[in-house]
Amino acid sequence: MKSEIHAESKNDTKVEVNARGHSFVIDEPEAHGGTGSGPNPVEYELGALTGCLNVVAHLVASEKDVKLESLEINASGELNPAKYQGKDTEERAGFQEIKLEIEAEADTDDETLKEIFEEAEERCPVRDNINHETPVELEVN
Amino acid sequence: MKSEIHAESKNDTKVEVNARGHSFVIDEPEAHGGTGSGPNPVEYELGALTGCLNVVAHLVASEKDVKLESLEINASGELNPAKYQGKDTEERAGFQEIKLEIEAEADTDDETLKEIFEEAEERCPVRDNINHETPVELEVN
Repeated sequence: MKSEIHAESKNDTKVEVNARGHSFVIDEPEAHGGTGSGPNPVEYELGALTGCLNVVAHLVASEKDVKLESLEINASGELNPAKYQGKDTEERAGFQEIKLEIEAEADTDDETLKEIFEEAEERCPVRDNINHETPVELEVN
Repeated sequence: MKSEIHAESKNDTKVEVNARGHSFVIDEPEAHGGTGSGPNPVEYELGALTGCLNVVAHLVASEKDVKLESLEINASGELNPAKYQGKDTEERAGFQEIKLEIEAEADTDDETLKEIFEEAEERCPVRDNINHETPVELEVN
């Protein structure tokens, strides 16, 4: 299964992304030197993770004949901006870890609900790309 | 630097994400059992990577007194849906690799332009989270 998107830079901090005719804008907040017209890249990263978990959790639940009645996810992470800013540092550039807090209601017990999300996490493509090494190949034309 | 988003499930494949008052919708296409109201999770993952590279490439370029006149990025990846679908497989759930094709114009030579993007890649938070292992902690309430 192939996925492909096209991004066009609008200014130093803003891109417009096109994915199969759907578009979205990524920008940095004005407080960080951006033009504030959309969520920033790491917020989209966190969002992608929650969107993925939603799809796979519903799939796993249905396999177990469980109905997820409601689902909300808070996703958060902290990063040290030193590397990103070009400082001499041993710290990594991205989130040190990502925390997912899930509030769900379903017609099952707490133990089964926990199992559903643990299995969903294992089968979620975005979580796999973040949780494990994924090669990124760069070609400049 | 802390980032945080909130996602609310709207149906089996769709979430609405809120990030500092900005919102975006993630969904699967109808052809994959979704309701087709937005890009899917892995497309947002690819988009986040391009948005991050745009910001950091402009930063690195300005450090080198180079002006990036235009920048477009194609990002793509392939994944095997077997694990996601719950089949017994050795394959990973996410993209095997991600390919970034960059078209850029700048007031410098090709070698310097390539160096700018290679340094930007190293300093990009989203690329770091994808390219290296990042712990994901799950809490179910």
